[in-house]
Amino acid sequence: MTSTDHAAGSANIGVVGLAVMGSNLARNLASREGNTVAVFNRSPEKTDTLLEEHGDLGFVASKSIEDFVASLATPRTAIVMVQAGKGTDAVIDQLADLFEEGDIILDGGNANFQDTRRRERDLAEKGINFVGVGISGGEEGALKGPSIMPGGSAKAYETIGPILASIAAVAEGEPCVTHVGEDGAGHFVKMIHNGIEYADMQLIAESYDLLRRIGGHEPAQIADVFAEWNSGELESYLIEITAEVLRQVDAKTGGPLVDSILDQAGSKGTGVWTVQNAVGLGVPVSGIAEAVFARAVSSKPDQRAAVRATLQGRPEVQERTDSFEDDVRKALYASKVVAYAQGFDAIVAGAAEYDWDIDKSAIAKIWRGGCIIRAQFLNRIVDAYAKDAGITTLLEDDFFAAAIRDGEDAWRRIVATAALSGIPVPGFASALSYYDSLASERLPAALVQGQRDFFGAHTYQRVDGEGTFHTLWSGDRSEVTTD
Amino acid sequence: MTSTDHAAGSANIGVVGLAVMGSNLARNLASREGNTVAVFNRSPEKTDTLLEEHGDLGFVASKSIEDFVASLATPRTAIVMVQAGKGTDAVIDQLADLFEEGDIILDGGNANFQDTRRRERDLAEKGINFVGVGISGGEEGALKGPSIMPGGSAKAYETIGPILASIAAVAEGEPCVTHVGEDGAGHFVKMIHNGIEYADMQLIAESYDLLRRIGGHEPAQIADVFAEWNSGELESYLIEITAEVLRQVDAKTGGPLVDSILDQAGSKGTGVWTVQNAVGLGVPVSGIAEAVFARAVSSKPDQRAAVRATLQGRPEVQERTDSFEDDVRKALYASKVVAYAQGFDAIVAGAAEYDWDIDKSAIAKIWRGGCIIRAQFLNRIVDAYAKDAGITTLLEDDFFAAAIRDGEDAWRRIVATAALSGIPVPGFASALSYYDSLASERLPAALVQGQRDFFGAHTYQRVDGEGTFHTLWSGDRSEVTTD
Repeated sequence: MTSTDHAAGSANIGVVGLAVMGSNLARNLASREGNTVAVFNRSPEKTDTLLEEHGDLGFVASKSIEDFVASLATPRTAIVMVQAGKGTDAVIDQLADLFEEGDIILDGGNANFQDTRRRERDLAEKGINFVGVGISGGEEGALKGPSIMPGGSAKAYETIGPILASIAAVAEGEPCVTHVGEDGAGHFVKMIHNGIEYADMQLIAESYDLLRRIGGHEPAQIADVFAEWNSGELESYLIEITAEVLRQVDAKTGGPLVDSILDQAGSKGTGVWTVQNAVGLGVPVSGIAEAVFARAVSSKPDQRAAVRATLQGRPEVQERTDSFEDDVRKALYASKVVAYAQGFDAIVAGAAEYDWDIDKSAIAKIWRGGCIIRAQFLNRIVDAYAKDAGITTLLEDDFFAAAIRDGEDAWRRIVATAALSGIPVPGFASALSYYDSLASERLPAALVQGQRDFFGAHTYQRVDGEGTFHTLWSGDRSEVTTD
Repeated sequence: MTSTDHAAGSANIGVVGLAVMGSNLARNLASREGNTVAVFNRSPEKTDTLLEEHGDLGFVASKSIEDFVASLATPRTAIVMVQAGKGTDAVIDQLADLFEEGDIILDGGNANFQDTRRRERDLAEKGINFVGVGISGGEEGALKGPSIMPGGSAKAYETIGPILASIAAVAEGEPCVTHVGEDGAGHFVKMIHNGIEYADMQLIAESYDLLRRIGGHEPAQIADVFAEWNSGELESYLIEITAEVLRQVDAKTGGPLVDSILDQAGSKGTGVWTVQNAVGLGVPVSGIAEAVFARAVSSKPDQRAAVRATLQGRPEVQERTDSFEDDVRKALYASKVVAYAQGFDAIVAGAAEYDWDIDKSAIAKIWRGGCIIRAQFLNRIVDAYAKDAGITTLLEDDFFAAAIRDGEDAWRRIVATAALSGIPVPGFASALSYYDSLASERLPAALVQGQRDFFGAHTYQRVDGEGTFHTLWSGDRSEVTTD
């Protein structure tokens, strides 16, 4: 296919795949000054629906992929919005056959960043720019302004940056989009975003559980507590909607809706990917992992029933102290700081592994609006990395260090109380242990090294000198150097 | 290559790769009645050393891979003992070129089970039996009797079973080997074994840390405590060697060796693989994950130093109670039960995913001797699955349920005390939260489902009826069915 086959069309951007996310993104694009939006969907019904309901936005619709490509101005720029997986490859292949050197294909689905890296490599051979774009904010975000995390080449970003900026959420006057880094960096960071989202939600769920089972409050009262928290340092979309969910009355029972919802939480893969990748990179993301595990445990009704059948009573719930609600809030905040610190560590490790130049402060900035974890809190992370991009962990930043110190006693009381009361707090407890590990002068990892040397001759290092050492455990137990 | 090229040789088993593990395994094989052992190593020096030092064992040594293959009786059976990774593929390819239909290649390295599955598939096309064999016990085990976990076909096991049984450890009169399941099942189960080993070691490390920092004991005293524990329900190789390591005096300082060892624990990959695979299979293996994370945290000296620099004092260590040492023991035991329950859940999930018929009782049996996690304790797991292979979790077994109930109060006290004292117990705390999650009648996962429905229309199920539901959160907040 040569350029004479397709004289350049008029649309500066195209959208392939018009399910809810795709059509909302197309509407968002079309409603912004300067965009002319081409649209295409494999089955024409979705296209027809979009045109019927929102035809006034002036879409350039095509019934074939060839016509769609012909309708795009050069360099052709198309966003693929199909379910991540095999479907994505099929659509990309079709586009790649028709696109020319310098054209740009964006994948706006929740792709695995390794797939994105592969696709970018394959298409680069043809001179086509492939850009994996993380888009967060769900259906409403897609329509009104999501947080956008594009990877791909800096060259491609020159073209797509302004288009994406036109539809992104705006936080503190800045559009929530930045060039995250090369090839799969965008989808990688989106994955970590989702992992952090898992941790955030788990910590909120633990807070609710404690307020209910120890605090003795009803869901509507707890909604008030969360609404109040939402005016302070915890202000965030997730805290806000937690209040909404807890206040919701079930029309069928007249009771709180949350009591009618089956307590088995699902997941969609990005939380799992985050854990798999972070652990592979040597980054302890216990906050995210415990959140993923907590959902998994909840979804094993057979195990839960079997264990409950073995119980002979449950521990007595500890008495609520006067500071209890405040303690929970502080435990939540401190644990949240840890979860974000771990998430950013995973970004740092990913950037090092895949050679991405990621501006951590810029990532925190674009998460301030549009996405699920949007929160005031992110301004503090922006500040921390802006002040010193080289900090080894967010926990060493003055602001966060002080925040932890301020909440530390409460955090410890909550974990202790929950343990004694039989209330699971995997997120709170794991975050506290992580913090205490970093804060301990000596760790029992020294014993682990001794064990490993004993049974596997894995050697160890010493505190008082360079080199690696081995004790002849089966021999005379003298120490030898192994360099 | 036809069979006339290689008249069958005299060796019933061959070993390729004569580093420590390989040569020890070769010696083990050669010292057992009925085996004639062919050996080959790429560089002849290792072969020469083996012959010089242990030539009396009657090895059939070759200087070329062709001669090695020719020295094997049919069906030719060779164990590859080279470092897992690319080297393995190279050696396997060489053997496969010379082997014939019906011959058997065993891989005794720590291969990733997915590689084993791939290799088995590839070689099956040539009619060659490929068997991934998990071997645990380190160098000493290889020589004196390891725990052996072969996968591959049942047909191949007919030939290799007796050979492996001849060199395996013996526990309660039975050789520690069984046909785990098809293709990669052996390496999968070996991976889980190693994951459990991580958890076991972490729990022991936490116990030591508590006995030292709260109990106020010196390493030599703690060695006595572990030695005493080793005569009870905790009796195991790891507890035994912990006492040995803690008793060891550093010749250089005159103090306990453990205080001279750098407290940064390394890892070799199988713990990471266990977490990656289990989380992908939807199995919460928090005990193993926290152990892997604990090693990772310990190995971040920069983060540790940076966080310690922010501290303004540490929490006061709680006072030691009279029952403290007993409490730690009970917390260790209960947490260990949880870690093993999770590990066996991962085996169950892997078997379901990859269509392996795994006898859980038999796995527990072959772990009773030769391997790093060998322990009396495994007899209880043998019993539990022998009594009812269909239990949904080890925690529902009468024995283990009673064990947890017996230790529960102590376990709670320890987690609470550690949290208040600033001592990290990621393993203990995570295991307790896992147990409390299973034991809770309702989990806050219901709130998580409400949140997911709010921001992503992910839908939820109800406690009082079939179907999936969605609340129109941005609309009139009525509930609709989405089936």
